[in-house]
Amino acid sequence: MIIALAQLNPTVGDIDGNFRKIRSAISAAREQKCGLVIFPELALSGYMAEDLMQNAGFLDQMEKALDEIRMNSDGIAVIIGHPSRNSGHGKALRNCLSVFRNGKIVSEYQKRLLPNYDVFNENRYFEPGTQPLVLELDGVRFGLTICEDAWNTEFSNAPGLYRVDPVAESVAAGADVIVNIAASPFSYRKVAFRENMFSRMAAFYHRSLLYVNQAGGVDGTIFDGLSAAFDAKGRILARGTGFEEDLVVVDLEDTAVPEVGEVQSENSLIFNALICGIRDYIRKIGADQVHLGLSGGIDSALVAVLATYAVGPKNVTGIMLPSRYSSEGSVKDAEALAGNLGIHLMNIPIQKTVNEAFSALSKVAFNGIRGITEENLQARIRGLLLMGWSNNENSILLNTGNKSELAVGYATIYGDMCGALAVIGDVYKIKVFELSRWINREFNHVIPENILKKPPSAELRPDQKDSDTLPPYDVLDAILEAFVEGAMTTKEIVDGTGVDTKLVNKVIGMVLRTEFKRKQAAPILKVTDRAFATGFRFPISSGWKPGGRKN
Amino acid sequence: MIIALAQLNPTVGDIDGNFRKIRSAISAAREQKCGLVIFPELALSGYMAEDLMQNAGFLDQMEKALDEIRMNSDGIAVIIGHPSRNSGHGKALRNCLSVFRNGKIVSEYQKRLLPNYDVFNENRYFEPGTQPLVLELDGVRFGLTICEDAWNTEFSNAPGLYRVDPVAESVAAGADVIVNIAASPFSYRKVAFRENMFSRMAAFYHRSLLYVNQAGGVDGTIFDGLSAAFDAKGRILARGTGFEEDLVVVDLEDTAVPEVGEVQSENSLIFNALICGIRDYIRKIGADQVHLGLSGGIDSALVAVLATYAVGPKNVTGIMLPSRYSSEGSVKDAEALAGNLGIHLMNIPIQKTVNEAFSALSKVAFNGIRGITEENLQARIRGLLLMGWSNNENSILLNTGNKSELAVGYATIYGDMCGALAVIGDVYKIKVFELSRWINREFNHVIPENILKKPPSAELRPDQKDSDTLPPYDVLDAILEAFVEGAMTTKEIVDGTGVDTKLVNKVIGMVLRTEFKRKQAAPILKVTDRAFATGFRFPISSGWKPGGRKN
Repeated sequence: MIIALAQLNPTVGDIDGNFRKIRSAISAAREQKCGLVIFPELALSGYMAEDLMQNAGFLDQMEKALDEIRMNSDGIAVIIGHPSRNSGHGKALRNCLSVFRNGKIVSEYQKRLLPNYDVFNENRYFEPGTQPLVLELDGVRFGLTICEDAWNTEFSNAPGLYRVDPVAESVAAGADVIVNIAASPFSYRKVAFRENMFSRMAAFYHRSLLYVNQAGGVDGTIFDGLSAAFDAKGRILARGTGFEEDLVVVDLEDTAVPEVGEVQSENSLIFNALICGIRDYIRKIGADQVHLGLSGGIDSALVAVLATYAVGPKNVTGIMLPSRYSSEGSVKDAEALAGNLGIHLMNIPIQKTVNEAFSALSKVAFNGIRGITEENLQARIRGLLLMGWSNNENSILLNTGNKSELAVGYATIYGDMCGALAVIGDVYKIKVFELSRWINREFNHVIPENILKKPPSAELRPDQKDSDTLPPYDVLDAILEAFVEGAMTTKEIVDGTGVDTKLVNKVIGMVLRTEFKRKQAAPILKVTDRAFATGFRFPISSGWKPGGRKN
Repeated sequence: MIIALAQLNPTVGDIDGNFRKIRSAISAAREQKCGLVIFPELALSGYMAEDLMQNAGFLDQMEKALDEIRMNSDGIAVIIGHPSRNSGHGKALRNCLSVFRNGKIVSEYQKRLLPNYDVFNENRYFEPGTQPLVLELDGVRFGLTICEDAWNTEFSNAPGLYRVDPVAESVAAGADVIVNIAASPFSYRKVAFRENMFSRMAAFYHRSLLYVNQAGGVDGTIFDGLSAAFDAKGRILARGTGFEEDLVVVDLEDTAVPEVGEVQSENSLIFNALICGIRDYIRKIGADQVHLGLSGGIDSALVAVLATYAVGPKNVTGIMLPSRYSSEGSVKDAEALAGNLGIHLMNIPIQKTVNEAFSALSKVAFNGIRGITEENLQARIRGLLLMGWSNNENSILLNTGNKSELAVGYATIYGDMCGALAVIGDVYKIKVFELSRWINREFNHVIPENILKKPPSAELRPDQKDSDTLPPYDVLDAILEAFVEGAMTTKEIVDGTGVDTKLVNKVIGMVLRTEFKRKQAAPILKVTDRAFATGFRFPISSGWKPGGRKN
């Protein structure tokens, strides 16, 4: 049987648009003589429609579209993921897949393992299923599973989180081919792990395995696609494109094993993920123009490059906002970068507006204006003018803050934290440098070398350096990664990094104290195993001290 | 047996502080001859410590404190709620209560029904229990349950959400007294419902019932306390204070039924809830001073009153920020209000700073400055100066936006949306008027009558009225409440309100399109059944159109 893996990029909630994509993919699969076309998890609604699914009007539209998919199944079997009303006991919805063929409903399966960690919140909406489904089509028995259903095996990173293993049950129930439809959010360490996991699973069960993932960005979440087919020895037969739609056609009877190659490098994955995240966010909210503040520093340089590759140089405007503390070098570096990228460049000096705000505030200040007040005034005047540009030119402001500064609150709320999307808010500073150097190797040194070389500075007071306030970034990032991604204790971090206890606790304290800023941050493009906001949820008014009990 | 219901207000994560409160309450109960003292759900950690509970250092501290509570149980039984490590299969934690007496561990119970809707996210952390627990103390058998465990009976608002009814099971297992320890978030319609539910439950089972709730605010969530004891006929015997700590002592052998009285009115509940929310937020983050922009309008007037009652007039500063569009009346009204309240009043004219920002932006604008740009510049300059005051005077900015404007995005992000806490972000505009009139009746007409009478205006352009842009607030609020709280379809809203389909769809469209603003809003004090952010979660880049499919 020839099978199409339809790696779709649906828009959440856009039932009409998603239906049209699905119908086109069915036609394309039929033209390529496929007997079966398989779509990702929740492909009809998009992953994740969240509370939209609580609205009966939305569900009615979706059911109507689902019925039209059924009517489009002449001569081909269609496996499609969608939310479904739960008429029985428990939560109002089920996370389902339907199987249609020749205009008929062949079968339906209800996802059994519902993830509720990190970005996932499926227990909010769905009642889990209790039964495996083995679907027989033309003598081939397909064991159907949905995403998390395949992540409780001994090959996963967290076996034992659930009581059942739906993959094992479907094999026990007679499956010849394991099918997993998914909406598996990207993290750069997960891609190779996941492919390896499916390969080992196929080999262990001596079954072919078909994995169909969603592609594209939904707010801060990026789906990497990279759907894949494996033979019963666990060898990869085909792989879908990364981060884009694809129709991967495989013939289960073809015994040849083609050369598929390795997945791309970590830096390449992050680069492509971020481009996908920007592009889809802008497109899906119906915008085209973006802009960002260009400081001459590495963060905004990296975001400018990513934006340029995401939406094209004609749609990107870099805005310099020099103050009296901006160095001449920074302005020149920003100009050189904009020239290399071919993006628009504007210059809006901020000093006069800062002076006026400073003066207005001075008249009521009891003891003069503090240094921190003046620094934040500058950052907020920049935010104000960048948002003014947004209003005036119908352009979307990209935020340029990195994960390290977001972690310790080294950012001004309503200032440099302004923006519709925090492009590199899940990229640590050291990784910002690493990714920028990779980009320079791959793309003809598009970032001026000077930007890569100068010491990081907010340029909010004379001769300011990040290192005046923060530990060196290699030390800071090591502590942060251990605390945020690793959820490690102070002792574990001290043992692992060699940094002293006092500094580790100081950094953890900074992270906890600045949660109020992150609660008002722009959506962050997630690329690690644990991004702020979606994956890291702390109370603001917490009284925890990492240093332990005071008696 | 004499029993103390220890209605605590823990600080999330502050193990030391919470331990000391618990130890004091045990001593107080012992002094009042109690044989048992009962604490709320997760009293030791506070509800809800969220991802703090994933840190082993935090859990270690908590376990040590729990052991010290055991050591403080001489001559009294203690029931205390706390998170607990799960050594078995599934999620890493359990939501537990422990029973200590005379320095010994008597028993432990694991919460069976884990809520994962609205503000709740317990499936993220906890593995549910599977067994009831009936605890015998001096011949009395207590059926122990934790919060949601009591909400799957026929008396609740959503029976059938779970497969088991832990209350029925504990009665079947021989309980004489039903105990429910809780952290039940406030909404103004829930209080009377909940008390009535427990009363009916007690009467139905012919069992006494003891309900112990947490009190106080945690970020946007407010716990109303109002712990209660019922006799086996469902009659209320005692009720804890609203929104504050209390130690309610009841004697189960005393057959007298005292006059407990009704719960306070809806307006009184909301007033006290918001005061509690402000006071605890400010106190728990370690601050004391607050300030807010005083426009002369009703929203900021209401927040000024609430802030004054929460932290005292000496700790509140109202800041007028007049522009050329501010009416003389508005300034006078703000002055009169500040005078009535006895709060500090400052005046920071914004026009010069606005002019300078306007001029800076004009030099790069391709087609002049648009009206919306200028309006937002004013709102953002105000936000900037209010945040400057924050930095300079170590004061916390209170946000004054209401739920109606937050719903339709009639607010400037980084402008009037600035602030650490959205005090009335869950109060619709019509309710703002109603609550303000109630306050004036109760508190000697503290809000100048003129503020209550004038038509709502943002005063960002000449003679601007909210009604230029929005439907009348009674119509708008009816649509919003049906869509947000009721999750109703367009047709249901049209049928229920009599408003025409086009306007209903326009309003729903505005709500969906402006989710990006609410994603960056300050934490909102929740007072209704569904507050934005915690209870209302939509994708930003959604393509859903409420008007139905376009074919």
